[in-house]
Amino acid sequence: MNLADLPTPCLVLDRTTLTRNIRVMAAALARLNVPLRPHMKTAKSIDVARLATEGQPGGITVSTLAEAEYFLGHGITDILYAVGITPQKLEQVCKLNGAGAHIIVITDDADMADLIAAQPVPPRTLIEIDSGEERGGVHPDSDKLLELAARLGSCLTGVLTHAGHSYAGRSVRDMARIAEIERSTVTRAAGRLRDAGHKIDIVSAGSSPTARHAENMAGVTEIRAGVYMFGDLFQAEIETHGMDAIAVTVLTSVIGRRPGRILVDAGGLALSKDRSTEATPHDYGYGLARDIDGRRSLGNAIVRKAYQEHGVIDLDPAFKVDLPIGAKLRIVPNHTCMTAAAHDRYFVVDGGQEVVAIWNRVNGW
Amino acid sequence: MNLADLPTPCLVLDRTTLTRNIRVMAAALARLNVPLRPHMKTAKSIDVARLATEGQPGGITVSTLAEAEYFLGHGITDILYAVGITPQKLEQVCKLNGAGAHIIVITDDADMADLIAAQPVPPRTLIEIDSGEERGGVHPDSDKLLELAARLGSCLTGVLTHAGHSYAGRSVRDMARIAEIERSTVTRAAGRLRDAGHKIDIVSAGSSPTARHAENMAGVTEIRAGVYMFGDLFQAEIETHGMDAIAVTVLTSVIGRRPGRILVDAGGLALSKDRSTEATPHDYGYGLARDIDGRRSLGNAIVRKAYQEHGVIDLDPAFKVDLPIGAKLRIVPNHTCMTAAAHDRYFVVDGGQEVVAIWNRVNGW
Repeated sequence: MNLADLPTPCLVLDRTTLTRNIRVMAAALARLNVPLRPHMKTAKSIDVARLATEGQPGGITVSTLAEAEYFLGHGITDILYAVGITPQKLEQVCKLNGAGAHIIVITDDADMADLIAAQPVPPRTLIEIDSGEERGGVHPDSDKLLELAARLGSCLTGVLTHAGHSYAGRSVRDMARIAEIERSTVTRAAGRLRDAGHKIDIVSAGSSPTARHAENMAGVTEIRAGVYMFGDLFQAEIETHGMDAIAVTVLTSVIGRRPGRILVDAGGLALSKDRSTEATPHDYGYGLARDIDGRRSLGNAIVRKAYQEHGVIDLDPAFKVDLPIGAKLRIVPNHTCMTAAAHDRYFVVDGGQEVVAIWNRVNGW
Repeated sequence: MNLADLPTPCLVLDRTTLTRNIRVMAAALARLNVPLRPHMKTAKSIDVARLATEGQPGGITVSTLAEAEYFLGHGITDILYAVGITPQKLEQVCKLNGAGAHIIVITDDADMADLIAAQPVPPRTLIEIDSGEERGGVHPDSDKLLELAARLGSCLTGVLTHAGHSYAGRSVRDMARIAEIERSTVTRAAGRLRDAGHKIDIVSAGSSPTARHAENMAGVTEIRAGVYMFGDLFQAEIETHGMDAIAVTVLTSVIGRRPGRILVDAGGLALSKDRSTEATPHDYGYGLARDIDGRRSLGNAIVRKAYQEHGVIDLDPAFKVDLPIGAKLRIVPNHTCMTAAAHDRYFVVDGGQEVVAIWNRVNGW
């Protein structure tokens, strides 16, 4: 099978780039002497999980219980569900743990801490710490941290933070600085809990940019990162990786031609409506068009409008292209987590046009 | 089954509102004496298609060939695929037509017209006309219109336009004006083709706003509209319908609490990253939160941030709410076509909390 034969739109994953990205991150973390618990929210695929856990302890992070169930079904049992737990989801976690999983949950809520502790077999639990993102989590110096620990009792296993505010950084230096805030915040919380007599086995931190550019991870026991595997235009803009490190593209066909622009069959559903690069130095609209080989032979050809099933690409006047209806292109996504979620499988290539494998994804909830 | 028992996030469809929306549109079009070929790109569900085609000729519009195949499998044969056809998709259409479908295709390209006409059994074909949206289509007064017709020969069946630029309108008066441009443009094209000796059976126009507010559809043989069935915040803002006509919501659970805001488990994947209302009088962020009964008891509680699996709702200070972790809310979407596509089924209610049916969707391509 060849990319030229595939129905469009569909998702292409370049395994050569993927494995290089995984190697680069593993090397960066090895230098910091901290293992990786890869976040599977981006890839949602067992085939990718196998590559990402190679040489690591083997645990993973997930963003949905559908992922947890899917990966358990494929033999991965050490799973961190890194979204604040609810009573209903706790019930589901306990069921999955009863079936052989070892799912770890997170909370920053006193009532939930009581409910977790009251389970017949409570799951291991991490207290979520806010290291500056201001999304979820408690302050490392707060009374609430100690209160939550007391309520959790023996199921307290550690602390977790996510420096999502690293996405506001725009340089390697910014990322290193935010990584140090992330590290010092979550280890300070761990220290306070240990001082209060709690056993803290897991000190979990991470985001792809901070993981990639941290200079020190002393005291952190594991790094969670996910988007680094695939990369995207936004991560390239914030210097998590280079433009040659983007492993996922959307294969699309030309469906219309006008002077200076073309219409393709990848619209808002196939690309997502994410506009992450709006706030970065280069605004790539809804994505950047490359040729079927993944080369940038169209220059700066950008998807400027995205209707449900139509994308409008403004051609780069410096690059002459004459594409017939049906010609295939590959769109590099703004935000690969959002784009990939619109598709149920990957058509895997190894740099060329030949499809060497088809890998499934676990979407939904 | 009750909404309170459902795992979240998931998609809720209120059948009472849906059937009222379908009745309102049918009545509006009956007054204009024009039948409806409902666009199933929003609902992607046979159960909804059955309601939407009631009292109409029975044909539908689709936006993907996955929809075409699905609806054919459920007995609907008169299908208009309203996205510019490509060589590869033409092959697929011919196969489906060989299997009992009567799929109509559209084109605005001379090479494609030749290829369509060269098929052993060419599908019926409409020439796409640009009535001002400037997405696809030829000008009604262009030489190209007649050239395309000559190339298509006997498979030419009609003309089609989509006044997508009605989405820039902001009042009923705007919509009526754009509807008249849409009508006059597509009927002018039909007239020129008839004058040149072509048989034009289908003159297809439509978008939900123009369908709803047109004052005259003389010469138009069918209206395509889709989003009116479900409605959304954007369509309410542009006066296609009222705020009480939104049939689809995302059921979500509270996963975090802070002063003035809550965190829910409906993020960018469950809601989509669509920001259509950014350009309208009321900017609803990524959606408006209502209570589990669909009532606006939280006031202006708006999803201001959408991470992959986290939504951040800024609470309305004028409304006191005290929601525990796990409490359920329903988020009204910005753009229902994008939001619904993240989900594989509808949990159907009839105004209350009781789930009376589960209807599947055909997503992907």
